[in-house]
Amino acid sequence: MAVGASAAERSVVGIGDDAAVWRSGERSYIIATTDTMVAGVHFLPGQVAWADVGWKAMAVNVSDIAAMGGTPTFALVTLALPPETAVTDVDALYAGLRECADVYHVTIAGGDVVSAGELSITVALMGEPLVSDDGEPMLLRRDRAAHDDVIAVTAPLGSSAGGLRALLAGDADAQPRLVEAHMRPLPRVDAGVIAVRAGVVCGMDISDGLVQDLGHICRASGVDAELRTDLIPMYKDLIEAYPDDARMMAMTGGEDYELLLVGQPDTIEVADRVLRDYLEMDARQLHLVGQMKGKGEGVVRVLDPDGNPVDVGTGGWDHMRGDAGR
Amino acid sequence: MAVGASAAERSVVGIGDDAAVWRSGERSYIIATTDTMVAGVHFLPGQVAWADVGWKAMAVNVSDIAAMGGTPTFALVTLALPPETAVTDVDALYAGLRECADVYHVTIAGGDVVSAGELSITVALMGEPLVSDDGEPMLLRRDRAAHDDVIAVTAPLGSSAGGLRALLAGDADAQPRLVEAHMRPLPRVDAGVIAVRAGVVCGMDISDGLVQDLGHICRASGVDAELRTDLIPMYKDLIEAYPDDARMMAMTGGEDYELLLVGQPDTIEVADRVLRDYLEMDARQLHLVGQMKGKGEGVVRVLDPDGNPVDVGTGGWDHMRGDAGR
Repeated sequence: MAVGASAAERSVVGIGDDAAVWRSGERSYIIATTDTMVAGVHFLPGQVAWADVGWKAMAVNVSDIAAMGGTPTFALVTLALPPETAVTDVDALYAGLRECADVYHVTIAGGDVVSAGELSITVALMGEPLVSDDGEPMLLRRDRAAHDDVIAVTAPLGSSAGGLRALLAGDADAQPRLVEAHMRPLPRVDAGVIAVRAGVVCGMDISDGLVQDLGHICRASGVDAELRTDLIPMYKDLIEAYPDDARMMAMTGGEDYELLLVGQPDTIEVADRVLRDYLEMDARQLHLVGQMKGKGEGVVRVLDPDGNPVDVGTGGWDHMRGDAGR
Repeated sequence: MAVGASAAERSVVGIGDDAAVWRSGERSYIIATTDTMVAGVHFLPGQVAWADVGWKAMAVNVSDIAAMGGTPTFALVTLALPPETAVTDVDALYAGLRECADVYHVTIAGGDVVSAGELSITVALMGEPLVSDDGEPMLLRRDRAAHDDVIAVTAPLGSSAGGLRALLAGDADAQPRLVEAHMRPLPRVDAGVIAVRAGVVCGMDISDGLVQDLGHICRASGVDAELRTDLIPMYKDLIEAYPDDARMMAMTGGEDYELLLVGQPDTIEVADRVLRDYLEMDARQLHLVGQMKGKGEGVVRVLDPDGNPVDVGTGGWDHMRGDAGR
């Protein structure tokens, strides 16, 4: 009785993209997502600081909003805690959640604390898109890739996978920047908003790994893609730490939480230029890694510089193994 | 960069009420809440049907929206599942979630499925309030009770506590209506919306028990309350099943998910009349159970018909014990 249009009629994006989107008013929209981190599944208590766990629990949700081209606003946080959980650990966890929320101007508006046998953190995060002059939401969607679009990523990749490997090998001290990339990802809200403003309409965040996530876009859009291994950007730290595996980590390693943007060359160029101005950086900020090629089954072909296919395995990413299905 | 006002400036109701409320547009607002049910803590797997667990996981969130006077719209559902969970159980759980969502016109817009050691269901539910002619949200809040307000409840109470007792005693077959009240609560979205339209501004849902929940309102408002034991409504089934304990169950039993409304007598009268018309019922729909009395510490006094105080214990409610702290 309180709602003019039914809820279903107001749905703009449903299940299958990085977040749901619906109309909340005349010219306003809500983007909403939720992600859960379970102790022992998504992180190893004792091996990581609680504040880092809290940061990441918020950050992965921020990244889902960024993946839609939106800006995060309000969060609900649910903590499931075993009775024996130390209060100091909960405080540290919350401090990490808040720290990330503050960086991204997110208000923690409510939540729930429940007793449970194992510890988990569930964040539900709301955000909002830019709205066009004619009142439509400006979004990055998975099903909007077109033939001849170029494929770009917002930063060198593989650092998180390198950080996880260093952590699991007890090498964390030797690789502080890689570990930082793994523990404290910095979702690219800035790049997402700039991209949609520049006219980019297709994209997502890189959580499962470049090859696998590009596969999501290919299948949702019904377009094939070609990735060029020699174009994949990597940080020097990663190459030096893992010279034999760096490139594979960059292609299939998960949890970088950078953005994967697919669009016509001119829109990607505009987004790159605006992002450089915004960040006051001289160097390119959007790294071209390949191109969409013809309608098809949604296959990702990985090619070396000579055009020969490269086998990257299934590209599946196991959060706890970090070996990306090789 | 996408948001005019900061998130914090747009917050209308923060932590401490049944749900959070914030401004999402010119004349639009979001109400948001989240609740989790953990196997073994909030329900006993094997003793209850999975579809009923799903229903309740959605219903408790719907009730939080109703508690604010709002109408639910979109939900995100997170299932944490042990690897050995049977697919048929998950299907049944989801069917129950959807059944409740359908009754309340809620669209399940997204969510997450994660691997975990124990099963839990987290629902994040969004809704929206009526908006007044001058653009303000029309809400039921906990901190709006005033001296001389009357206290009303939307239906007889204690049925859920009776149903839980029957379940735990293996008596479920003998008490189908009480068990139904416990397993399939019907949150009062209708009554909440009608109440705010009638001018009621204070209320919440009864999840912890009447005495304890009224205590929340008293403390938030800085007003004392007097409840009259002889006015507490109860269904005949409850009185016949548990003649010695029915009244105490009605006062302190949790999980009825009816509404507790506090307001000036004329607004409560209007709400009652509209609710009767809406439901096509002749009998009173808002049951007066007491009155707010003077500014104070926020104490709830429970009195018998002669005005003598009645001890109802701490009023604490343990979900698994069902004996309401006596």
